[in-house]
Amino acid sequence: MKVGVLTGGGDCPGLNAVIRAVVRKGVQEYGYDFVGFRDGWRGPLEGDTVRLDIPAVRGILPRGGTVLGSSRTNPLQHEHGIRRIKENLAKLDVEALITIGGEDTLGVATRLADEYGVPCVGVPKTIDNDLSATDYTFGFDTAVGIATEAIDRLHTTAESHMRVLVVEVMGRHAGWIALHSGLAGGANVILIPEQRFDTEQVCAWVTSRFRASYAPIVVVAEGAMPRDGDMVLKDQSLDSYGHVRLSGVGEWLANEIEKRTGNEARTTVLGHVQRGGTPSAFDRWLATRFGLHAVDCVRDGDFGKMVALRGTDIVRVPIADATARLKTVDPKLYEEVGVFFG
Amino acid sequence: MKVGVLTGGGDCPGLNAVIRAVVRKGVQEYGYDFVGFRDGWRGPLEGDTVRLDIPAVRGILPRGGTVLGSSRTNPLQHEHGIRRIKENLAKLDVEALITIGGEDTLGVATRLADEYGVPCVGVPKTIDNDLSATDYTFGFDTAVGIATEAIDRLHTTAESHMRVLVVEVMGRHAGWIALHSGLAGGANVILIPEQRFDTEQVCAWVTSRFRASYAPIVVVAEGAMPRDGDMVLKDQSLDSYGHVRLSGVGEWLANEIEKRTGNEARTTVLGHVQRGGTPSAFDRWLATRFGLHAVDCVRDGDFGKMVALRGTDIVRVPIADATARLKTVDPKLYEEVGVFFG
Amino acid sequence: MKVGVLTGGGDCPGLNAVIRAVVRKGVQEYGYDFVGFRDGWRGPLEGDTVRLDIPAVRGILPRGGTVLGSSRTNPLQHEHGIRRIKENLAKLDVEALITIGGEDTLGVATRLADEYGVPCVGVPKTIDNDLSATDYTFGFDTAVGIATEAIDRLHTTAESHMRVLVVEVMGRHAGWIALHSGLAGGANVILIPEQRFDTEQVCAWVTSRFRASYAPIVVVAEGAMPRDGDMVLKDQSLDSYGHVRLSGVGEWLANEIEKRTGNEARTTVLGHVQRGGTPSAFDRWLATRFGLHAVDCVRDGDFGKMVALRGTDIVRVPIADATARLKTVDPKLYEEVGVFFG
Amino acid sequence: MKVGVLTGGGDCPGLNAVIRAVVRKGVQEYGYDFVGFRDGWRGPLEGDTVRLDIPAVRGILPRGGTVLGSSRTNPLQHEHGIRRIKENLAKLDVEALITIGGEDTLGVATRLADEYGVPCVGVPKTIDNDLSATDYTFGFDTAVGIATEAIDRLHTTAESHMRVLVVEVMGRHAGWIALHSGLAGGANVILIPEQRFDTEQVCAWVTSRFRASYAPIVVVAEGAMPRDGDMVLKDQSLDSYGHVRLSGVGEWLANEIEKRTGNEARTTVLGHVQRGGTPSAFDRWLATRFGLHAVDCVRDGDFGKMVALRGTDIVRVPIADATARLKTVDPKLYEEVGVFFG
Repeated sequence: MKVGVLTGGGDCPGLNAVIRAVVRKGVQEYGYDFVGFRDGWRGPLEGDTVRLDIPAVRGILPRGGTVLGSSRTNPLQHEHGIRRIKENLAKLDVEALITIGGEDTLGVATRLADEYGVPCVGVPKTIDNDLSATDYTFGFDTAVGIATEAIDRLHTTAESHMRVLVVEVMGRHAGWIALHSGLAGGANVILIPEQRFDTEQVCAWVTSRFRASYAPIVVVAEGAMPRDGDMVLKDQSLDSYGHVRLSGVGEWLANEIEKRTGNEARTTVLGHVQRGGTPSAFDRWLATRFGLHAVDCVRDGDFGKMVALRGTDIVRVPIADATARLKTVDPKLYEEVGVFFG
Repeated sequence: MKVGVLTGGGDCPGLNAVIRAVVRKGVQEYGYDFVGFRDGWRGPLEGDTVRLDIPAVRGILPRGGTVLGSSRTNPLQHEHGIRRIKENLAKLDVEALITIGGEDTLGVATRLADEYGVPCVGVPKTIDNDLSATDYTFGFDTAVGIATEAIDRLHTTAESHMRVLVVEVMGRHAGWIALHSGLAGGANVILIPEQRFDTEQVCAWVTSRFRASYAPIVVVAEGAMPRDGDMVLKDQSLDSYGHVRLSGVGEWLANEIEKRTGNEARTTVLGHVQRGGTPSAFDRWLATRFGLHAVDCVRDGDFGKMVALRGTDIVRVPIADATARLKTVDPKLYEEVGVFFG
Repeated sequence: MKVGVLTGGGDCPGLNAVIRAVVRKGVQEYGYDFVGFRDGWRGPLEGDTVRLDIPAVRGILPRGGTVLGSSRTNPLQHEHGIRRIKENLAKLDVEALITIGGEDTLGVATRLADEYGVPCVGVPKTIDNDLSATDYTFGFDTAVGIATEAIDRLHTTAESHMRVLVVEVMGRHAGWIALHSGLAGGANVILIPEQRFDTEQVCAWVTSRFRASYAPIVVVAEGAMPRDGDMVLKDQSLDSYGHVRLSGVGEWLANEIEKRTGNEARTTVLGHVQRGGTPSAFDRWLATRFGLHAVDCVRDGDFGKMVALRGTDIVRVPIADATARLKTVDPKLYEEVGVFFG
Repeated sequence: MKVGVLTGGGDCPGLNAVIRAVVRKGVQEYGYDFVGFRDGWRGPLEGDTVRLDIPAVRGILPRGGTVLGSSRTNPLQHEHGIRRIKENLAKLDVEALITIGGEDTLGVATRLADEYGVPCVGVPKTIDNDLSATDYTFGFDTAVGIATEAIDRLHTTAESHMRVLVVEVMGRHAGWIALHSGLAGGANVILIPEQRFDTEQVCAWVTSRFRASYAPIVVVAEGAMPRDGDMVLKDQSLDSYGHVRLSGVGEWLANEIEKRTGNEARTTVLGHVQRGGTPSAFDRWLATRFGLHAVDCVRDGDFGKMVALRGTDIVRVPIADATARLKTVDPKLYEEVGVFFG
């Protein structure tokens, strides 16, 4: 049996761990052959492949990024996209596809599986942790770790100069990274996209923190927005991951805090460093187990499914369930964390 | 209301995060007063206390260890131990105890709560992750991260000299640290206490790895034992955490591998570095949430309970459930990981 | 004898190590008393002091920032500034001042020492490493380490998406951080303030890198400028360290590269994280030795001097020598490193 | 021109950075061809080579170990060893050898160059930093960083349990790693091979530290010895780097401290993790510059020379000078650091 593998969307620490696990188990236990498709859906669309066997996955476990490359190519937006994919798969004798990706990549997989009978198995991937049906996605823990370390560092700078530091972290639609890294980093304010923030309240927290002789750290998700709706965004171009970028909330907020409280405020935008580099041990563990279970789905002929984490178990869920709605931060959880604000 | 807090047993990254969360929420939301007891059960036994208020928990979130100190004092083994604790609590007007500890510490809490009516809430703590009723305990992720980084480092040394490297990690009764760090670190053999290992099989894996022109890394839990029972232990004294130390398995195994395969082999015993230093973001998150929920148990008068992680939720379980049996590695999980051996 | 200590200018990892070493040696070996002045020159100007004895310096070695606080207050710009400092020192019986700071802070110390007879000893501090008369300043190694780790992380993102990544690092007037972190991080282009860059040449390097199937990393010091002088700066306000901020070179360059080469390009501005957090072992070593030797200067009555690193020795040089001119990157060294461009 | 490259002795972070720099500059600027010899002197002795061109050195900068492999093979101890090397070099048209190694490896290079006319250039390599004629060797900074991080971690464990922690670090003949990591890690006692220690004095320091309510960290180089000469060594076998291993000083000392002071004491032997993994930014910088200058020596026909660091300059010195005597810790420097003991 020949199995294709592709990685789509933004890169994410742990992708290589999935690929390695899929190949190691598939070759050693089930005798499968593998074909790597290059750059997400572009690979099967254009028949662009890369060798994928045991030697090809040696030493890739601790490496960030993806040895298969990635892209945002959507075959549904290409003429005869699906037909070309089916033809290319047939030409290569590929009988099943393991697709590792987020909402978009898996959305294509769902349609391929459901509407066109292409046997697909999904592996969830989003550094933002905002995919339903799984407790966590790999890459998230690494991103939170990087952001937390940065916040740890910024504390000493804030204290030395008694200055507000606003840290903008990833999270366009969901505040998971902000929430986790903000809590772990001892932030005094955490702002997430799920709840529009009240700039006056933020300033009150900042002021009360200074009154206790400490300098405040404000962690803000890139997608957070003020309640008062008066934020002038500096830039609304498409970002590097293909979405409209509502950038600038960090800088905007630092300016507002300076203006309204009279305290010096600075911004740090963590940016791409959050998604690069070697995955954390947790992410290697999760990604590897996702890979092992994905190849089991292929063996069981259990297509249209995605592997997912539930507690400490890896389970299978319909791909469609995972992409149906975004997993956002529960208001109760946000409230729980709110005890540390101010 | 006045609430006592103590930390017992071996130190563990995240203890300070629990203490901080308990105090921040207890003081700010419920208006509690807190008393810190020094060095685990020794504190209430001898009436040795430490101030525990908001200023006392400032800045401790990222710090390893415990500001309260710890010990293995067991009041049940002291004459009138329980009576003295009850008297000391009464003298201090302490109406509830939050006890943060492992099997032993929580075992005392259970008996205090059940048999003597001392209102206790438990927070699970074991770096080995071997406590039932909770998906994970804090400190474990940090330990796995440190061990994984060490294994990453050892790979390059092993390859440069084509030499076997045996890494002995923590885990006397359960192989969780070995399993997670071994998988994450790309180890070629992982040996855990739950399954006696076959030294010949280990040597076969080592040899096959060399045949593929790679140098093997063997990760072994300190409590792992050979099936053939011929291990001569160099030392059976009480270890630093009060248990009989079955030490030397790493060194023993390296010697056996050298003798049986003719390959050079070296051992690294990671030791105490695994449990020290700043907690990982995951552990800060988990420990903080445990602390927040523990103080909620006090508010609800829900005593004899322990907070626990289930998926992404914090739940309450009877303390007795958690200490009834050790959580060991499921044979199926060990088999799942076995695809990477050799 | 009573000795004052102050830290001025931007915070820098290692400041606390200097303070600790000064106090430990001064108290233990010479029986000195110490007075900490708060927030740089603001302290002696306003008589704002902080207790500085052995307990006050416990545990501060690994902490970033400065326990004394810092500011950019320049007493020469305050009416009767010098007189007020002399009066305050007299009032407190302070007979010598150890001033830890950069060009500006030490410049004030020189004038105080030379013109007004205030006995000052200088300890050089600049994260940018651009102070003459010393091989290295502490904080620089930490900053280079943080930037290098970030560049390491960005490589995998760049490769996965075949995209140019521009990393803007600190260095307004000197390119030391860019040069060291760029070389250590395997950057394909490094741009420094000392030499205006040719945007066409940068684009040629980028293109040649892609031709070899690798994605380029461009490291650019914040003070680097294009030769063609056509850079439109987005912002020329005063930055957090009191200088005119010629910001935006990273973003400007990424845009130019996109326009001129057709390759996708992204920017990461590392910002404040480079100067925060725990100092590297090298910086703790250097800062500690600076502190030990500074207090020896006081004992020897050797005022108007600054401690400096020459090879592995700590020497004393006139403060004025160190502040006379900026230490910039030697064109020969830049050329040496140029072998890795493209 | 064809140039051979080999790496001998123990592995060391930065070896790959040297190799990469040599090849990048040699190929690009001078048009050289390169031959890699496998496993130190074993390579030229047996004619065992590995391809060494630009693609072969891609991506190796951040990787520990050596892509050429290493060994302790000494051709002078093999029959006709020198003749065979000369024959093999001739057969391969190799006209110059760049030998990267420590005392032993460079010792062979000296004799080859001096007595047999084989044109050699040396690059110094010792993780212990004990080679004369150079301020620092690469690998040392990485090892110090790893040891310092471990000591940082151990502090919290020591404090939580009020227990002595003895940390045994590398350094058989010179105490550089102990001195630097001990100072940077805030150790309370540092013991080095250059000065036999007085166990009673160590115990006095330990006791005085406890009296101040802090738990002591004792850093001891593996080659340190008690003055009283009563240390019973557990093992005198050849160690992994071919020297007699005077192991066990850490464990011995912990036992003595327990016996003599009554305080609980534990040992951590850092071992191989100190020499593995990714090199620090400083080591990448130094190793790269060593490589660039070594290939310049070849171009200049300047054989029998070794590159060395003096301040911030790379200079050339006769190889013989570097291997003539060990660079040990100056008693004055040790005394300087002694202010922190106890």
